[in-house]
Amino acid sequence: MSKRLAKAFNCPTEFTLAVLGGKWKTVILCYLKLRPFRYSELRALHPNLSDKVLSERLQDLIDAGLIARKKSAGSKNIATYSLTERGRTLDSLLGELYGWGERQAPVFGVSVDYPLKRLSSKT
Amino acid sequence: MSKRLAKAFNCPTEFTLAVLGGKWKTVILCYLKLRPFRYSELRALHPNLSDKVLSERLQDLIDAGLIARKKSAGSKNIATYSLTERGRTLDSLLGELYGWGERQAPVFGVSVDYPLKRLSSKT
Repeated sequence: MSKRLAKAFNCPTEFTLAVLGGKWKTVILCYLKLRPFRYSELRALHPNLSDKVLSERLQDLIDAGLIARKKSAGSKNIATYSLTERGRTLDSLLGELYGWGERQAPVFGVSVDYPLKRLSSKT
Repeated sequence: MSKRLAKAFNCPTEFTLAVLGGKWKTVILCYLKLRPFRYSELRALHPNLSDKVLSERLQDLIDAGLIARKKSAGSKNIATYSLTERGRTLDSLLGELYGWGERQAPVFGVSVDYPLKRLSSKT
């Protein structure tokens, strides 16, 4: 993503949205705001995403310097993804995106699921 | 937009992003957070948008109940667009989108313009 990022934007909001880069990357970031996740966990949290797309979006976020992939201390084969220091600057924005959705879903008459609860009930 | 909004979402953030509905509507909302604007002002603030697209995005936002179009008190022919009470619930989220872009642009090495300053220097 970073390679494709324009050098000039018409307003600050356009720039922010270009960095966030659409729905899936933003949703992934919202989970990683909470804690680091393994690939298999991120896979379970995004049932509508193919492996190909999830891998590409994670690589985009690594390229943008917003997340990092690290080998777990316990195992050489298991890696976790987490927000970098740069990614952490998005904390309150990501919190607003999640919180607004949570509060307004009943107002708009839509239902929202909480995949993290599904995940924790499985483990 | 409201007609096309799904009834169920996998997580709160997905729902928020569906309501915001992409770049242009979010950018328009960020301006209307500041104050009401006439169509001609919104036109000047979005130099990259065609009249057709700007009109469609405004209508989408009206349909979603986030903005309203009102005739100005002074003239029957001039209308202004402003956030509704429902749109006002987006205030702090919109502030985060704008503020993050403003703070992080230098870090990412990009330049951001401030169309509102252009607008006020013309009037």
